Amino acid sequence: MDASKRTYAPVNFQDKLARFSDQWQPRVIAEINGYQVKIVRIEGDFVWHDHPETDEAFIVLDGTLRIDFRDGSVNVGPGEMYVVPKGVEHKPFADREVKMLLIEPRGILNTGHEGGERTAENDLWI
Amino acid sequence: MDASKRTYAPVNFQDKLARFSDQWQPRVIAEINGYQVKIVRIEGDFVWHDHPETDEAFIVLDGTLRIDFRDGSVNVGPGEMYVVPKGVEHKPFADREVKMLLIEPRGILNTGHEGGERTAENDLWI
Repeated sequence: MDASKRTYAPVNFQDKLARFSDQWQPRVIAEINGYQVKIVRIEGDFVWHDHPETDEAFIVLDGTLRIDFRDGSVNVGPGEMYVVPKGVEHKPFADREVKMLLIEPRGILNTGHEGGERTAENDLWI
Repeated sequence: MDASKRTYAPVNFQDKLARFSDQWQPRVIAEINGYQVKIVRIEGDFVWHDHPETDEAFIVLDGTLRIDFRDGSVNVGPGEMYVVPKGVEHKPFADREVKMLLIEPRGILNTGHEGGERTAENDLWI
């Protein structure tokens, strides 16, 4: 290879996960225009919330995420994704730790407009 | 579980991949507002192109993707992602078949504005 050429670094999900252990605190790892890809560890029950202004995508890396809806649920395992449509109330749940990616517009809070003690810091990069 | 509750289905990447074998033809598997998640098989060399209006994200599921830039390159393996900034000329390459996800706004052509025989059908769902 031409010695003057630059080698760029990819974003490695395991490398990013190794840098934190706290749960329910999404870290931003990439941006696609105004959208952010976040990585997060979750375990246990979250709060019911919705995002009236946006869809929200979940891509599971490890573990099994259950997303409860008022009328049912979906299980999302490694190598699977699910998009919660905007305005749909949902509650993520994990009986063991789940590692996953979130994709949503910049500025979206994890608790939607519910607020409360489960609201995580926003726009935290790792 | 309440028998009246509905079980929703996640999007499974391997299930989607099992439904086609052609390369360089991205299929849409999910939408996040105006953005699409596409799944694609690639092998060999693509054409130089850019997307003046948008960033483009690559998430590799299997194999090693090399993206060449005019001033260097990046290798992206399974469990890794890379975002090519808008307007940056790039050329994907895979010496063996790579299976990956693309994330970009609806309506973006795989060859940018280059056109030509490598331009794939757009907005093809699977």
